[in-house]
Amino acid sequence: MQGSRHPFDVATDLKPIDDGTWLAHTSEPYWNMIGPFGGLIAALLFKSAYAHPEREGEPVALTVNFCAAVARGEMRIAARPARTNRSTQHWTMEMLQDGERVATATAMFGKRPDTFTHRPAKPPSAPPFEGLSRLPPPDAGWIERYDLRFADGSLGWRGEDREPASAKSTLWIGSDPPRPMDFVGLAALTDIFFGRIIHVRKRMVPFGTVSLTSYFHAAEADLAELGPDPVLGTADARIFDRGFHDQSAELWSADGRLLATSHQLVYYRDPAP
Amino acid sequence: MQGSRHPFDVATDLKPIDDGTWLAHTSEPYWNMIGPFGGLIAALLFKSAYAHPEREGEPVALTVNFCAAVARGEMRIAARPARTNRSTQHWTMEMLQDGERVATATAMFGKRPDTFTHRPAKPPSAPPFEGLSRLPPPDAGWIERYDLRFADGSLGWRGEDREPASAKSTLWIGSDPPRPMDFVGLAALTDIFFGRIIHVRKRMVPFGTVSLTSYFHAAEADLAELGPDPVLGTADARIFDRGFHDQSAELWSADGRLLATSHQLVYYRDPAP
Repeated sequence: MQGSRHPFDVATDLKPIDDGTWLAHTSEPYWNMIGPFGGLIAALLFKSAYAHPEREGEPVALTVNFCAAVARGEMRIAARPARTNRSTQHWTMEMLQDGERVATATAMFGKRPDTFTHRPAKPPSAPPFEGLSRLPPPDAGWIERYDLRFADGSLGWRGEDREPASAKSTLWIGSDPPRPMDFVGLAALTDIFFGRIIHVRKRMVPFGTVSLTSYFHAAEADLAELGPDPVLGTADARIFDRGFHDQSAELWSADGRLLATSHQLVYYRDPAP
Repeated sequence: MQGSRHPFDVATDLKPIDDGTWLAHTSEPYWNMIGPFGGLIAALLFKSAYAHPEREGEPVALTVNFCAAVARGEMRIAARPARTNRSTQHWTMEMLQDGERVATATAMFGKRPDTFTHRPAKPPSAPPFEGLSRLPPPDAGWIERYDLRFADGSLGWRGEDREPASAKSTLWIGSDPPRPMDFVGLAALTDIFFGRIIHVRKRMVPFGTVSLTSYFHAAEADLAELGPDPVLGTADARIFDRGFHDQSAELWSADGRLLATSHQLVYYRDPAP
């Protein structure tokens, strides 16, 4: 039966084992070089609150702290409501392996009433998805699960250049195989962008996100309308300094709606020359 | 004796009452209209980890979730290390009043080794602090504790305009009375910016930050060099939609060093016309 389910749905399966405690399992199709795709960890922590029967309101904010490498195998996730108000609800989550925390997280949900609306941010310009070529995926791993098509600021491996390249990228992101958009999938996409350090350095540098914050600007009904269409993402950075760089990203629907923004702090090891 | 201490130091006093548990107290000089200045809550939660004897490393990331209104009086803050690694340390904190959570937080600390450094972001241009006039403080409260001088995008109260104004502001921020910069003070400054909704609407709208994430790009030694000089801040927003808007800000030293960036999600109540 599992063969007929999308690998992302299999990878984000949560088995309830106790009130507010879930069991999850790492997934080969979303494996990264040395651990799971970070977006999958974010999606699992998000889902531990989102899928909880006590959750109230639409997803609004999520912060995930990647505390330690996640090993192949089982993860235990604890999620509890920290505070429930009339129109907002706050959650605290953590992921453990062998009794040790490997990630911590908080999430916020809220009612989304009709209000004054204003959207000063505009989507990046990019040629259509169909006209761009797919980033050749490596042999295996999570990158095969996404159809990434760079419109601007692609990865380069010409590391001999002395000048830092632009930190900014714009790319289309589709699921492979296609999968209808939902909040668990969107939570994963907020961590889809490569660490800006490898764009700037044009060569591989050891890096990893240590803290990710995602804000959701769409509601469930908006996402349901999107179906499996690719989304347009853009990411940039302000500063690379003493082992950490920042990164801010936007995720847009093909018809120009801002679905989510995310911010992250990325650890890198790139000794001073 | 208290009279000789800076009101910010008094307001961020933490009394240890147990391993990892602190007692704090709200402070009239940093009172807002209906609760404490949010930056003070952020500073207290930050300090509960930063001042803990088990803390290792320089401040790197902080997320504070404002779960509920904080009433005048005592707060209990619990801070515990979630994970300690060789070069990074993650913390989980919460603030309680009468046994109920009013704020949750996470923080990350890390070593800041010499690495490749790159600073694509440039400071906003602004006339010198001395040439600008101070935002007239209201009768009382936290705004009197900061000397805010808008270079661009000041507050306006011409709410009859139909068109949204710019969400972007640039301003100098000094402490009043002056206070040497440190991380506890910087944590508070990451929440100094008014909710963009009142800039855009040019009138008062009920609003409050619900989640704040701050990234620190300076080290302790950098801050120690700054002394009590004002810092230059800039804030902007991408989207205002169904009760929430985002907000991203930068804090720069007068000599053009990016000290911190912050991102927040702000709740607002501004019914659709």
